[in-house]
Amino acid sequence: MIKISITTLRRTQLAPVTREIQAALAALPPWDGLLHIHSPHTTGGVTINEQADPDVAADMEKALAKLIPWNDHYAHAEGNSAAHIQTSLVGVSTLVPVRRGKLALGTWQGIYFCEFDGPRSRELWLTPIREAE
Amino acid sequence: MIKISITTLRRTQLAPVTREIQAALAALPPWDGLLHIHSPHTTGGVTINEQADPDVAADMEKALAKLIPWNDHYAHAEGNSAAHIQTSLVGVSTLVPVRRGKLALGTWQGIYFCEFDGPRSRELWLTPIREAE
Amino acid sequence: MIKISITTLRRTQLAPVTREIQAALAALPPWDGLLHIHSPHTTGGVTINEQADPDVAADMEKALAKLIPWNDHYAHAEGNSAAHIQTSLVGVSTLVPVRRGKLALGTWQGIYFCEFDGPRSRELWLTPIREAE
Repeated sequence: MIKISITTLRRTQLAPVTREIQAALAALPPWDGLLHIHSPHTTGGVTINEQADPDVAADMEKALAKLIPWNDHYAHAEGNSAAHIQTSLVGVSTLVPVRRGKLALGTWQGIYFCEFDGPRSRELWLTPIREAE
Repeated sequence: MIKISITTLRRTQLAPVTREIQAALAALPPWDGLLHIHSPHTTGGVTINEQADPDVAADMEKALAKLIPWNDHYAHAEGNSAAHIQTSLVGVSTLVPVRRGKLALGTWQGIYFCEFDGPRSRELWLTPIREAE
Repeated sequence: MIKISITTLRRTQLAPVTREIQAALAALPPWDGLLHIHSPHTTGGVTINEQADPDVAADMEKALAKLIPWNDHYAHAEGNSAAHIQTSLVGVSTLVPVRRGKLALGTWQGIYFCEFDGPRSRELWLTPIREAE
């Protein structure tokens, strides 16, 4: 398993991490199969979506903040229940196809770390999985 | 990795694909473990849910369209931000248990391609993964 | 594959299952990689989130019930469409990092079975996957 670190800048931020993840894979012997990308956090997840137009991420940030409002009579004393709920809606991990050690996403797909309670220092844990032959 | 093609018919459509995926697996030597099913798109995802009563899919289509309205002052100029957001809510991939090369889902479970910006031609990428012994 | 049984107590319940899953892994030879946790149901899913403060689960239960109301002119005659939709929002499976046969989650992370149409007897299916070397 490889760990990479990222820094987020706002409370709600879809941070593109495709390039950072691809760079980290250079440390591994090339393989065919999948890469598991895991956020070890409970207020930040992982998703795959378009990264060509930054407005897509901006629209997603706004929509998720609207769907689960920050203040809504939550019981959790830390005050960040919205971030926990948003994290479970996008999920804390994803699996990405890999060919010869390179991420093999669809043409418009990129990987985002989804920050819901930033700014913070965060990690992503990367686990390579081989395709069955 | 195997690729299959599907055609969707409406803007929002949960299209059952269990049978198409099972048929495609005939090209692989049988294995025990999991099948990774990946949508390489950013406005269409994958989910597992009931396929006995088509009303379940119809209710899901309506609920997702209501949750993330098509028009909501989005910034993304293409006008399909709702489809991007809905895709991240269901996710672009899933893993399904497999026994001897056959999908081993729960009794009522089936696989859907979730179209959110159709009608279109779409692909699903299938990667077999072996269970650890 | 290992199957474990759980019993839920309410219609909507995030039931912590980290300990039960870790206990079940004692039956397997230790491995490094991932564990796939699959809910074979269509009205109950799986998510990873904080388990230190039970208020987090309570807030998530309320938020999901509010997001997808139980009664909303659904077509599905069984009357539990909300449970189907909530299940697809959290997803029916997850993958958890494993070191030497032990779950290797983030500090605050734990695994929940997400009951959306309880109380019921439920199952989780566990499949070990080895990391590529």
